[in-house]
Amino acid sequence: MDRSVRFIGFVRSELRRREEAPKQGPEGGLAAWLEIAERFIDGVEGITCGDQIVLLTWLHQGNRNVLKVHPRGKEENAATGVFSTRSPDRPNPIGLHRVTVLEIAAPNRIKVYPLEAIDGTPIIDIKPVLPRLGDA
Amino acid sequence: MDRSVRFIGFVRSELRRREEAPKQGPEGGLAAWLEIAERFIDGVEGITCGDQIVLLTWLHQGNRNVLKVHPRGKEENAATGVFSTRSPDRPNPIGLHRVTVLEIAAPNRIKVYPLEAIDGTPIIDIKPVLPRLGDA
Repeated sequence: MDRSVRFIGFVRSELRRREEAPKQGPEGGLAAWLEIAERFIDGVEGITCGDQIVLLTWLHQGNRNVLKVHPRGKEENAATGVFSTRSPDRPNPIGLHRVTVLEIAAPNRIKVYPLEAIDGTPIIDIKPVLPRLGDA
Repeated sequence: MDRSVRFIGFVRSELRRREEAPKQGPEGGLAAWLEIAERFIDGVEGITCGDQIVLLTWLHQGNRNVLKVHPRGKEENAATGVFSTRSPDRPNPIGLHRVTVLEIAAPNRIKVYPLEAIDGTPIIDIKPVLPRLGDA
């Protein structure tokens, strides 16, 4: 079984370093561009301005050997399992971001808001929000 | 960069074959067990009965070379990019499931509902739903 993730594109953002990124999009996330790689362009057909999408990223700076964390990085918060937190340090460093499509500048350039992922973060999936399901 | 996903556990469900799985959890998903692998048990500490969680799975039967699909598998629906659908056939076959924790039978056995993933589906991440964010 092929367990290797494929990077379908990259985030282009003014956020450059993990330390300056907010914990979550709505806590100060910026508008950012999704730059889709040439070979995956067919996959983004159908995405439209105004859409709510779920963006999955590969948080390449995450520490994959962490199983317990202090929530929000604060020592005063008791350590808990990473799977009950949104820490980027986790066995599979997958980021989950609910964002709105603001602009589509070219078939492979999609502007979204609000995004807390830093510049250069690999994109691994995009899904529509299914409002009927409460989602995602 | 290590791009390989780690399986933190497996879904145990009465749904055995992809053909009998509903398209989405709320469309006939069942209660199912998440069986967490021994080495990842510390990560699930803090998950509690009644929690809403986002489960990420690796849809191992998905076709990773598909970029366009007929939504909901119906030929009469015009083909569109996979990233504007929830098709399991996509470059990274990641399933996103919003479920409720019904029971925790042992540190590594978590019962959730409603889940459409079939028996044996690898689990790659669990995240809390952040209601404040509308989420996921």
